Amino acid sequence: MTIKDVAEYCGVSISTVSRVMNGHPDVRENVRAKVMAAIQELHYVPNNSARDLVRPQTDTIGVVLRGAENPFLMSVLRSIEQAVAAADYTMVLQQIGTDDDEVAAGASLIRSKRLRGLILLGGSFDYTPERTAALDVPFVCCSFTGSFSSLDKSQYSSVSIDDYAEAYRAVQLLICQGHRRIAVLLGSVQDHSISELRYRGYCDALRAAGIELDPELVAESGSFEMADVYTATQHLLERRSDITALFTISDLMGIASIKALHSAGRRVPEDCSVISIDGIEMTRYTVPTLTTLVQPRRQMGAEAVRILLDVLEERGPHTHIRLETALREGETVGAPNH
Amino acid sequence: MTIKDVAEYCGVSISTVSRVMNGHPDVRENVRAKVMAAIQELHYVPNNSARDLVRPQTDTIGVVLRGAENPFLMSVLRSIEQAVAAADYTMVLQQIGTDDDEVAAGASLIRSKRLRGLILLGGSFDYTPERTAALDVPFVCCSFTGSFSSLDKSQYSSVSIDDYAEAYRAVQLLICQGHRRIAVLLGSVQDHSISELRYRGYCDALRAAGIELDPELVAESGSFEMADVYTATQHLLERRSDITALFTISDLMGIASIKALHSAGRRVPEDCSVISIDGIEMTRYTVPTLTTLVQPRRQMGAEAVRILLDVLEERGPHTHIRLETALREGETVGAPNH
Repeated sequence: MTIKDVAEYCGVSISTVSRVMNGHPDVRENVRAKVMAAIQELHYVPNNSARDLVRPQTDTIGVVLRGAENPFLMSVLRSIEQAVAAADYTMVLQQIGTDDDEVAAGASLIRSKRLRGLILLGGSFDYTPERTAALDVPFVCCSFTGSFSSLDKSQYSSVSIDDYAEAYRAVQLLICQGHRRIAVLLGSVQDHSISELRYRGYCDALRAAGIELDPELVAESGSFEMADVYTATQHLLERRSDITALFTISDLMGIASIKALHSAGRRVPEDCSVISIDGIEMTRYTVPTLTTLVQPRRQMGAEAVRILLDVLEERGPHTHIRLETALREGETVGAPNH
Repeated sequence: MTIKDVAEYCGVSISTVSRVMNGHPDVRENVRAKVMAAIQELHYVPNNSARDLVRPQTDTIGVVLRGAENPFLMSVLRSIEQAVAAADYTMVLQQIGTDDDEVAAGASLIRSKRLRGLILLGGSFDYTPERTAALDVPFVCCSFTGSFSSLDKSQYSSVSIDDYAEAYRAVQLLICQGHRRIAVLLGSVQDHSISELRYRGYCDALRAAGIELDPELVAESGSFEMADVYTATQHLLERRSDITALFTISDLMGIASIKALHSAGRRVPEDCSVISIDGIEMTRYTVPTLTTLVQPRRQMGAEAVRILLDVLEERGPHTHIRLETALREGETVGAPNH
């Protein structure tokens, strides 16, 4: 399997495949998507042996940040950057969209920047050995883990919250207030990522309280874009005006949902409570203030770097760390009034 | 002037000065501040001549991002990163706090990462030749310019909006709605940066409409932190409950001010209109939707890189570009009701 095979498979030039792999933005979106899909389907792994022989040891750590304009990931990134600088390494960043492939971006960054190690900041959970074969340096999943992955856990590291348990906790908080018709807003119930894990926490919290799962109360936005979340909340409210509480799996989703509730004439929390997970600074200033489970952002970034450097400098093995959230009580959770 | 002089002046070790200059976070904040102040006061310029002789040409562009967790700067950063990658250069990022010194951080990054060029993303406007002497590679000010600077304009580039003119425009929009008691919320009227320029636009828009400047309507938050903005808005409302409109110089400030207005029982826009500058995605989802002048974020980042590469590759001289904003009409501006 060579780059020529990928190009022929896609009906594009070799240089186009190369440009896609090197993250050039001057490739049309449909072409880029086709090439990325082919690279995955064909399990194409660039032939690095020639390069490896001559590759000098660099001090560069790559970070692939999936999801731009996300203040939560920005905070984590800042602590990663500080920890990398403190250890006299260099950080190289690549930001990608929430639907882009962080493994392909990481593999390309490893090649082009001769990385010593890689941190994937945001991503999905379903890595296979074939898919990650091109990640031929130690890597750490930061803010997510390999729950749906067939990778050997000793082959990579991760730092994240326990998505299932924290979602369970959020929904339990709503149940304790007396809510029964609790909706959930997430990207997709089958994204093999945080949406799916948090959805499972939602389901099990309901089940433990003897509340039957009602599929109409599950709202999938299809993405983490605020516009899509706003629309998904509108559809949820059209479908089921009787909900009294909403669990949104991220703060940005919470902001967009509160807006949609407000536009539909529903007061928060009188008509509908809202709880989320993240704890970004600006949700202290939403009207009303968002109630949220705060992720330990600084610790998350610092731990990711610590683990990676331990592996790089042969002080320790790959490891998996679960951090806990802290409840920040806002003004969006109350008792149901109907 | 040597690093030893700086260390003696501060009463710290040479290695502490070195750690500060190289951006290590493991230095106590008061020590760091003292060393930074001394470096500026003494006009200390590291002796780079030995290094310059042996320094190989790298393909690395540094970005110093001043102000973490700011979605506006994040968007600009993303377009910078894409443009840098498209040109086959490498981007190295350093994030600093809103009160940190971007010139010192840039100088340190130039040394430690052997940069070919530097983009300062956010900063102040009062550079002197002494202060920027350590920036011995081409640099571009992105999102701000050198209005208060004594630098020769042919020695650096800048890409930004026209802060004065856009603030003038925002305040004029409020005046056209019939407002006369218009407050302004900014960091400081004398920050030699965007606050001061936008304050001048505010003053002149009032003057042109025959409205006398009322110092009680000028609210300084002292920083761009949302908590400080919230408090400054509270004090403004305690001082002058008769304002009918508020111009906040950034979207994040607008979010915090709307929250403070709401907490004080003031409806937006019925009791007080709010307008700001930035146009970040999440202010589409504030309650009510923020009316704001949208900065062309992607263009700003792309132009900064284009100019820098033109200078690096000797295709063109340093240049200064002013971009225009676009009004995004939200729900926070109406006619005064008292």
